[in-house]
Amino acid sequence: MESLGIMGGTRDFLPDTMIRREFVIDTLKLLFRKYGFEPLETPAIERLETLTGKYGEEGEKLIYQVINSGSLANLQPGKRLEHALRYDLTVPLARVVAMYGDEMLPDPKNPKKQLRRLPRPFKRYQVQPVWRGDRPGQGRFREFYQCDADVVGATSLLVEAELIALAVEAFKTLGFQDFTIKINHRQLLAGLISWAGVPKSKEATTLSSIDKLDKLSVEAVKSELHEKGLEQDQIEKLFNVIKLSGNGAELLDEAGALLKASETASTGIAELQQLLGLLKALQVDGQHYKIDLSLARGLDYYTGTIWEIVTAAPVGSVGAGGRYDGLISTLSGGLVDQPACGTSFGLDRLLAAMEHLDLLQQIPRNTEVLVLRFTDPGAELILLSLVCALRKVGVRTEIGYNDAPFSPDGMRQQLGYANEKGISYAVIMGPDEMTQGMVTLRNLLTREQSKLPIVDAVNLISSRLHS
Amino acid sequence: MESLGIMGGTRDFLPDTMIRREFVIDTLKLLFRKYGFEPLETPAIERLETLTGKYGEEGEKLIYQVINSGSLANLQPGKRLEHALRYDLTVPLARVVAMYGDEMLPDPKNPKKQLRRLPRPFKRYQVQPVWRGDRPGQGRFREFYQCDADVVGATSLLVEAELIALAVEAFKTLGFQDFTIKINHRQLLAGLISWAGVPKSKEATTLSSIDKLDKLSVEAVKSELHEKGLEQDQIEKLFNVIKLSGNGAELLDEAGALLKASETASTGIAELQQLLGLLKALQVDGQHYKIDLSLARGLDYYTGTIWEIVTAAPVGSVGAGGRYDGLISTLSGGLVDQPACGTSFGLDRLLAAMEHLDLLQQIPRNTEVLVLRFTDPGAELILLSLVCALRKVGVRTEIGYNDAPFSPDGMRQQLGYANEKGISYAVIMGPDEMTQGMVTLRNLLTREQSKLPIVDAVNLISSRLHS
Repeated sequence: MESLGIMGGTRDFLPDTMIRREFVIDTLKLLFRKYGFEPLETPAIERLETLTGKYGEEGEKLIYQVINSGSLANLQPGKRLEHALRYDLTVPLARVVAMYGDEMLPDPKNPKKQLRRLPRPFKRYQVQPVWRGDRPGQGRFREFYQCDADVVGATSLLVEAELIALAVEAFKTLGFQDFTIKINHRQLLAGLISWAGVPKSKEATTLSSIDKLDKLSVEAVKSELHEKGLEQDQIEKLFNVIKLSGNGAELLDEAGALLKASETASTGIAELQQLLGLLKALQVDGQHYKIDLSLARGLDYYTGTIWEIVTAAPVGSVGAGGRYDGLISTLSGGLVDQPACGTSFGLDRLLAAMEHLDLLQQIPRNTEVLVLRFTDPGAELILLSLVCALRKVGVRTEIGYNDAPFSPDGMRQQLGYANEKGISYAVIMGPDEMTQGMVTLRNLLTREQSKLPIVDAVNLISSRLHS
Repeated sequence: MESLGIMGGTRDFLPDTMIRREFVIDTLKLLFRKYGFEPLETPAIERLETLTGKYGEEGEKLIYQVINSGSLANLQPGKRLEHALRYDLTVPLARVVAMYGDEMLPDPKNPKKQLRRLPRPFKRYQVQPVWRGDRPGQGRFREFYQCDADVVGATSLLVEAELIALAVEAFKTLGFQDFTIKINHRQLLAGLISWAGVPKSKEATTLSSIDKLDKLSVEAVKSELHEKGLEQDQIEKLFNVIKLSGNGAELLDEAGALLKASETASTGIAELQQLLGLLKALQVDGQHYKIDLSLARGLDYYTGTIWEIVTAAPVGSVGAGGRYDGLISTLSGGLVDQPACGTSFGLDRLLAAMEHLDLLQQIPRNTEVLVLRFTDPGAELILLSLVCALRKVGVRTEIGYNDAPFSPDGMRQQLGYANEKGISYAVIMGPDEMTQGMVTLRNLLTREQSKLPIVDAVNLISSRLHS
């Protein structure tokens, strides 16, 4: 280790940061579980052939290839390696569905029957890092966690409704008050574009311009579309619909009336109307979602409902999702064709938004009580039994590990340690307390302290901490 | 994805397996937290120079090097790459301590003061995968999780005592009844070897033979030592001490009497005696640890107390630990020199042991209730409000996503799905129940079922599930 450092675009998560990350991840996992999603993990290293041809020409260059040192010497120059690091969680999901989706196991309850190894529909969540050899930059990392919940194998709109309900519950649970899930539908957009007279060949580029409406002005987007060769009346027709706003059901009625000639758009509108009904039935708070006809989403694999989550923090969207019925087939090279729909949380942006909105302060640092060792070595056994008793009732407790606890500096050092770890309470047993059978409990934030009888200390401390 | 598959030695963890892995990891994390350990994560990709020279010649060949696809074309043949995958969690720990150990931050409570960025002592746990390009085999993987808790920066024997107490609590919490932590001390062993007349140059090889006593007979180890050039009386002297058994304190007294001429051995024995006192003070159940003078541990970096955890399952040791005061200095290339002590849980072996001892059955599969959709589309809104209400009281609930729920097959398919996911309860609202304002709750394991008024269903179901 001649020089110290890590690769650009990667991060060490030290405890203060990790505690916040684990809080957010654990909150999301608990919610995924409550909605019936189950965890999946796939290997970091995949066969390179599993990943190639999936991420476009530019994406492909960012794939990290791996080789063990013993084999590197034999590598032919110019040859690709055999293995590579996971680039996202969607290709591994497609591989898992293709590999195990038809596998049957004997039913433990009834040996004559068989069960699917992967339940169908397959509701899985996956929270794992992915790697991309991108140029590091503000908010752009070479290693970052993705956090996805997907349902493979069901076309029901209940899937969309539950994923959106889950996202709303997630943001509420994390403490966000001001956030919105913008919802639109790819068939509505496709129908609209065609109804406006824009040729199919320009659908993708039109969508990509519309997608910029959250960053650019209407005028700027219109002139971009003009430069792309759309005619003025086509652009006006597009914006007559896109600019519609208001209450979801009414907005959809208006759009439906305008677009009634387009079967595709009408299908999308009908699905959105049905979705609004399901969201109401799932008691999702109406202030946290809205139909937004200007939402397009960059990725072109979506086929149905799409959504994006924005908060009051200026960090961009913190989550997104949608239905992508053809993608599993594409990604599995045609081996399986199952409908799919999923939602994804952007962990780094989510944490940045929480930081910006001051929502991270609520997350407690770990240790609640530090029992100080500093006076009489004879007190140690009593203090250790106090440590045990506090842990037994669930109080996260430490005892000072100082190497010279009984030196004059012992107490100062241990209080410094408590400060470094953000520990709120110290238990002190000096010579006076010891003869009285007492301990002193000091609140290290307010500096208030009180003496407690040792025999009551556990109850009093745990009730004070967990009240 | 022309052919399906993953690299040998790696694994997909499908939900049934993942739920068990997450249960074990979450149990360990909760305990680490209760003892005041905080989480650390480091990047999967490290600079290659951080890893080289740390794992021996054989280990070095197993390091996976990585390069992004865009740069691979420019690779010079025969050159090493710049980056590599994490090989263990100890080298990254040493790097973190070397990089941030002296960094100071302003104290938020007192701007005139500064706080260490890393608390000292640094108590961290880390649960992350590591990669080794080894030949895959029974229980040997190329990607596997390590699960370590270490304390850097304290020499106090309290560290050893708390790590052993934590391990005992962990195995009890996971449901193990019959397990033992074998404890020994490197200085006792070094003193013994020297006292027996074995030259220092043969210490390491002697330890490596002693370490085989859990697999080989005493006679086999003796003859191996003989072949290694130890004299008969040296071997007998060694075994006169190693064979001592019995109650910890008495055994140590006996060994102490025999080895009193060795200062090194006496230091080790005194520390073990003090450790036994601390374990008692921490109320660790004496049946779960014992002094075992034949325990040597393969790795040669240990400097003090060492331990190893064995269970009644024939899977080898499921955890181990010890003090390694010189290692941080070695691993950081002399940049920092701090005492350290840690314990490690072998997640794969631990799960294998739990499987063998039938301890995995206690871990519930995820979803508790499946609300079936199969009769009247008009019932859907009522069913969805039931789903919401069950989730609100913490019941992990799903509603059937079947695409054709109202077909004759709808109910059969949804019950099959419940079976695949190991769901215990189904809620059914057929036409009869609907007109009566009732739902049927069916236990899918016992096939018992009862009708409940819809208005009471949430309370009755949650009390039945969580009683």
